[in-house]
Amino acid sequence: MSNDPVDTEDHMDRLHRAIDRQATDQIWRLLNNTMVPAEVAHALESSPPREREELWTQVGPETQGEVLLYLSEEVQDEFLDRMDAAELLTATENLDTDDLADLLQRLPTSSIQQVLDSMEAQERERVETVLSYPEDTAGGLMDTDTITIRPNITLDVVLRYIRRHEELPQSTDVLWVVTRRDELIGRLSINKLLVCDPSMSVREIMDTDFIRLDALASQNDVAQLFERHDLISAPVLNERGQLVGRITIDDVVDVIRDSAEHTVMSMAGLDEEDDTFAPALRTTRRRAIWLGINLLTAFLASSVIGMFEGTIQKITALAVLMPIVASMGGIAGSQTLTVLIRGIALGHVKTNNVRWLLGREMIAGMLNGVLWAAVVAALAIVWFDDWMLGGVIALAIVINLVVASLTGTLLPVLLKRLSIDPALSGSVILTTVTDVVGFLSFLGLASVIYL
Amino acid sequence: MSNDPVDTEDHMDRLHRAIDRQATDQIWRLLNNTMVPAEVAHALESSPPREREELWTQVGPETQGEVLLYLSEEVQDEFLDRMDAAELLTATENLDTDDLADLLQRLPTSSIQQVLDSMEAQERERVETVLSYPEDTAGGLMDTDTITIRPNITLDVVLRYIRRHEELPQSTDVLWVVTRRDELIGRLSINKLLVCDPSMSVREIMDTDFIRLDALASQNDVAQLFERHDLISAPVLNERGQLVGRITIDDVVDVIRDSAEHTVMSMAGLDEEDDTFAPALRTTRRRAIWLGINLLTAFLASSVIGMFEGTIQKITALAVLMPIVASMGGIAGSQTLTVLIRGIALGHVKTNNVRWLLGREMIAGMLNGVLWAAVVAALAIVWFDDWMLGGVIALAIVINLVVASLTGTLLPVLLKRLSIDPALSGSVILTTVTDVVGFLSFLGLASVIYL
Repeated sequence: MSNDPVDTEDHMDRLHRAIDRQATDQIWRLLNNTMVPAEVAHALESSPPREREELWTQVGPETQGEVLLYLSEEVQDEFLDRMDAAELLTATENLDTDDLADLLQRLPTSSIQQVLDSMEAQERERVETVLSYPEDTAGGLMDTDTITIRPNITLDVVLRYIRRHEELPQSTDVLWVVTRRDELIGRLSINKLLVCDPSMSVREIMDTDFIRLDALASQNDVAQLFERHDLISAPVLNERGQLVGRITIDDVVDVIRDSAEHTVMSMAGLDEEDDTFAPALRTTRRRAIWLGINLLTAFLASSVIGMFEGTIQKITALAVLMPIVASMGGIAGSQTLTVLIRGIALGHVKTNNVRWLLGREMIAGMLNGVLWAAVVAALAIVWFDDWMLGGVIALAIVINLVVASLTGTLLPVLLKRLSIDPALSGSVILTTVTDVVGFLSFLGLASVIYL
Repeated sequence: MSNDPVDTEDHMDRLHRAIDRQATDQIWRLLNNTMVPAEVAHALESSPPREREELWTQVGPETQGEVLLYLSEEVQDEFLDRMDAAELLTATENLDTDDLADLLQRLPTSSIQQVLDSMEAQERERVETVLSYPEDTAGGLMDTDTITIRPNITLDVVLRYIRRHEELPQSTDVLWVVTRRDELIGRLSINKLLVCDPSMSVREIMDTDFIRLDALASQNDVAQLFERHDLISAPVLNERGQLVGRITIDDVVDVIRDSAEHTVMSMAGLDEEDDTFAPALRTTRRRAIWLGINLLTAFLASSVIGMFEGTIQKITALAVLMPIVASMGGIAGSQTLTVLIRGIALGHVKTNNVRWLLGREMIAGMLNGVLWAAVVAALAIVWFDDWMLGGVIALAIVINLVVASLTGTLLPVLLKRLSIDPALSGSVILTTVTDVVGFLSFLGLASVIYL
C-alpha cells in the first residue's frame, strides 16, 4: 500500500463521491480503514454542518478518540458535548496520556471523573499528573510515557531491558537516566546505544548537557526552545528536579501553527480555534461583537468630522479628499503594527531595542509621509485647482503618517506590558487614532487657513 | 551544565550587558562557547544594524555557517553578500547536505561552483542532487544522509553494521530498506530493531505501509503530511521510486511557521522573510510601494465622493456619516476574507463547499447588516434629527455588508484560481470594493431621495 502526497486529496475526493452517491458502506470503509484519524478530522473540518454530522455518525467508536485529537477546539466541543459517558470511555480507551489529558481538559468535571474512574490505577495517576498542570504549560502538554534507566548499569543490560518491551513509546529517541529518587541526571540517545561498546556503563556515555523543561514553562517558551534547538523530544521536570514526563515535537508543531495563526485571526477579531464551517447564527453573533466595537471607533471619527461641518459646507473638496488622509495613515500604521506584533511574538523586540525601532519607524513614516504628501498634493491641486488645498492635505498626511508610525510602534509594546493581546486590540485602537488624527489635522488645518 | 526555558533569555541578557560594557572577550565567549548557533542567530535578528555588525565580526568562522542557517533570508543575504569564497568555504565545511544546499541556493552561481569544487566527490554529488530540485520542493528540502540496508539480512547483521558507524545521522529514527537498484521497499524503525529477535530478517519485520514523498512535491504539501501524520522523518523518492533522501521534522517546522506567518505579513503588504531591524531607507522604500497601491484605491473612493459634491454641500451630515458606512463594510469584509484565506491555506475550502460558505456569509452579512443598520440609523436620527437620513444610512449599510460578504468569500477563491496570492492582494481589492460601494450606495441613495 503506497502513500504519496496526493493521497489525502485522493481520499477526500473518493469520500465526496461516496457522499454524493450516498454509498454508506464505502463512506464507512474510507473513514475507518483507508483514512488515518488526521485525515478523517480534516474531512470533518472541511464539511458544512449537515455533512459533518453524517460523517461523524460513520466514524467507528474506537476511532472517534483519535479523530477528536486532530480537530480544532470549537469542533471538538461540538462533538464532545453530545457524547455520553459510555461513548467517551470507548473513544478514549486507547489514547496516550497526553492526548487523553488534552481531551479531558475540554470536558465538564463530572465527565472527567467518570473517565478517570474507569482507568487502571497506574494509568489514572499518569493522566492526573498531566491534568494537575495548566493546559498551556509544559506539564499540560507532556506525555508521561517515558523509559528511565539507572546510571550504573552497562549498555548491554540496557539493551536487554529494552528487549523486554514489546514496543517503545512513540518517537522514543532517548532513554532518561534518573537517580533512585527520579531526579534526572542524564540522557542516553538510542543512536548512541546502538553504536557504542555494550560493555560501557550508562554513566560513561550519557549526555548531561541538554535542554530541560520546567513543568510550569509556558507552551510558547517550549515551542521556541524546540525551534531554536531542533529538538525531537525534551524532558519535563517538576520543581524538585524529578522527571515527570517528556514533550515530543509533534505536540509542539500544533503550538507553533496555533501561535502563528493567532496573529492573523486576532487582527480580524477572530480566534484561531474558530470552526471554518460554523453555522450562520453562531457566525453572526461572533462577528457582531467586533462590528460593534468598530462602530464605536467609527462614530468617534465621525464626531471629529462633525466639528467641521461648517468648513465642509464651504469647501466640499475637503469631504472628497479627507478619506485619503485617514486611509494613508491607517495603512502606514498597520504596517508598523504588524512588524512590531510579529517582532514581539518572535522575541526580537525587547526593551533595549524599541528605541531604535521607534527611530527607524519615525524616519520611514516621515519620508513616506513627505513622498506621498507631494503626490497627493499635486493631484489635489490639479483636481480642484486650489494650491492652498494642496498644502493643507500635504501637511495633514505628513502629520498622520508620523503619528501612525509612533502609535504603530509604541501601542503593541504598551499593550504587551499591560498583558493585553496586541494582535487583538492593536488594529482597532490604531485605526481609531489614524482616523481621528487624519480628520482632525486635515479639517482642522483647513478651518484655520480658509476661515 | 543545566539548561532551562529561561536560559536563552539569560544568555541574551548577559550578551547585552557585555555589549554595554564593551567586554569583547566575554562577547566572544558567549557567542562561540555558551550560546548555540540558533541563539546566536536570534541575537543577530534582535539587533539593530550597527550592533548586529559588531556581533557578527565576533562569531567564529566555523560557527558562521550554522548561524546563517537560522537567519531569515533577508539577514542571510546581508551577510552572505559580504563573505568571500574562502570565508564561505570555512563557514560551510561542517554543514549537512540539506543545510548546505539551502545556503548555496542563496548565492550567485559562481560562488556555488567554488564551494562545490572544494568538496569531496561523494559529498559534492549529494549536494548537487539536492540543488537539482527547486528550493520549495521535497527534493530541495531533503537531506541525502540516509542509512540504507538490504531486506535479506538478519537484524543481528544490521546491528553489527550500525555499530561500525561512529555516529548515526541526526534524528535517525528509521533505516531504509532498498533493493540493489536503490528502490525503496520498506523501512525498519530503530525502536523495532531494539525490541525484536535479532535472528529475524529485515524483510520479516520491516514496515511497508508508510508515507513516501515525491521529490517534486511542494514543501507546503510536505508540511501538511508531516502535521497530519505526526511524522518525524519521511523518505524522498525520485520518479523511478529510488530513495534520494529524507526529510526530518526540524526542516518542516520552519516551513510550517513561514506559511502561517505569510498570511499576516502579506495582508499588510509585508514579507515573512523581512528583517525586523531593516535600516530606515530600505524600510521606507518597501513600504512606499504598498502605500502607493493603497493611494490608488483611496483616490478611486474619493472620485466616487466627488460625484456627489453637490449633495454633500446641501446635506453636510452625509460627509460626517459616510466613513461609518465604508468602515463597517471594510470590517465585515475583512473578517470574511480572513476566514476564507485561512480556510484555503488549511485546505478546508474546496470547490464543493464554497457554495455553502457563500450562503453562510451572505446570511451573516445580512443579519449583521440589519442589526447595525438599525443602531446606526437610530443614532443618526437622534444626532441630525432627520428620519430620512436614518433610512438612507440603514439601507446603505445593509447593501455594503452584503456586498462585503460576497466579495470576501468569492475574491480569495477567484484569486487562488488565478494563482494570485489572496493574502497579498485580497485586502486591498476588498477595501476598494467596500469603500466604493459604501460611498456610492450612501451618497447615491441620498441624492435620489433628497434631490
